[in-house]
Amino acid sequence: MSRFALHGYFRSSASFRVRIALNLKGIAYDQVPVHLVREGGEQLQAAYRAINPDSLVPSLTCGDGSVLTQSLAIIEYLEECFPTPPLLPASPLDRAFVRSVALQVASEIHPLDNLRVLKYLKGTLGVSDEQKDAWYRHWIDLGFASLEAKLVSDRRVGGYVYGDVPTLADLCLVPQVWNARRFSIPLANYPTVVRIADHAMRHDAFAAAEPGKQPDANT
Amino acid sequence: MSRFALHGYFRSSASFRVRIALNLKGIAYDQVPVHLVREGGEQLQAAYRAINPDSLVPSLTCGDGSVLTQSLAIIEYLEECFPTPPLLPASPLDRAFVRSVALQVASEIHPLDNLRVLKYLKGTLGVSDEQKDAWYRHWIDLGFASLEAKLVSDRRVGGYVYGDVPTLADLCLVPQVWNARRFSIPLANYPTVVRIADHAMRHDAFAAAEPGKQPDANT
Repeated sequence: MSRFALHGYFRSSASFRVRIALNLKGIAYDQVPVHLVREGGEQLQAAYRAINPDSLVPSLTCGDGSVLTQSLAIIEYLEECFPTPPLLPASPLDRAFVRSVALQVASEIHPLDNLRVLKYLKGTLGVSDEQKDAWYRHWIDLGFASLEAKLVSDRRVGGYVYGDVPTLADLCLVPQVWNARRFSIPLANYPTVVRIADHAMRHDAFAAAEPGKQPDANT
Repeated sequence: MSRFALHGYFRSSASFRVRIALNLKGIAYDQVPVHLVREGGEQLQAAYRAINPDSLVPSLTCGDGSVLTQSLAIIEYLEECFPTPPLLPASPLDRAFVRSVALQVASEIHPLDNLRVLKYLKGTLGVSDEQKDAWYRHWIDLGFASLEAKLVSDRRVGGYVYGDVPTLADLCLVPQVWNARRFSIPLANYPTVVRIADHAMRHDAFAAAEPGKQPDANT
């Protein structure tokens, strides 16, 4: 058994981010699938709530019994405990740039297109499937347009968001692009965003974290 | 003129967070108000988009021409450049705890109750005022219930989220409680959340950051 267990779901963006971080740093971990759809959602059941009362994935449990939640907090923890290879640049200004890109995904796009939000739109507000799909696309478009404007003009951008090494920014960008494609959102207006995501997916650590390759894929 | 200028809006939660951080660290700054409502929203106009194409507040401009965006990225930057007093604990596990509380507000509650989201619900989806208010309350309730469960049982919680000193977690919690009260959300089920927010607001750095005390208040 590994020191770390990642409680997550193959299609969860936030779980995908943490899998990439663990892979990049070469940290061994077990996966404990939490199925977000089956039987009304395992994240809402007592077994998972005993680990994380938020009912959100992922959670990272450590050998000493600690439970870490919130993907960006988990990744910053891994960065502090396992600094090589680094997922943040050295200078504070550049770290702020990388974190701002990560947060543009994690706080501006992803929360609005989350499963529980789509459920509320459909179940409680009774919107149509077309309206739900338009909502999903609206927040992707708004967020990706901002990201494209930022990335296309910043001299720090290289093969990855920050030069030629993967950072926290790519860990957030890649799963969001993967999700957008899953919902067939046209991405032609965001060539820099797509170029970076496609480049990153050629890295073994990203490729191995892809939803389709997880033990709970398509269950 | 100060080295830093904070482009924000008095009622913006994310601007409120950064004001508290600047005050706690005793960093001088100028405020440049960006009115989110007047004339269709100054954040959408060319003058502000030249600073931040995201059209989101706050942005922090530095003396060297750099522009920082995303409140949590700005606060981590301030923490790295002005480490005293610290806004994060020393140990990685405790830092992860503080960051997870901050992110539970910044990535799970706030993005859903943002002005542009409420506008989309009303303008594009045509929901009623009652449905919009219920939406607002739903995400506050869900998020505060999770936070209450986490904070009431964690031995690290003191007068503030982490012991007896303000951290990044309080910087996010306080504006969210202020917002909930502004919308008259009943908070009796979240006594720990409310106790911490009220305690923090007695600190000069928090009190001075309160929306009603800003130069653009109620304009």
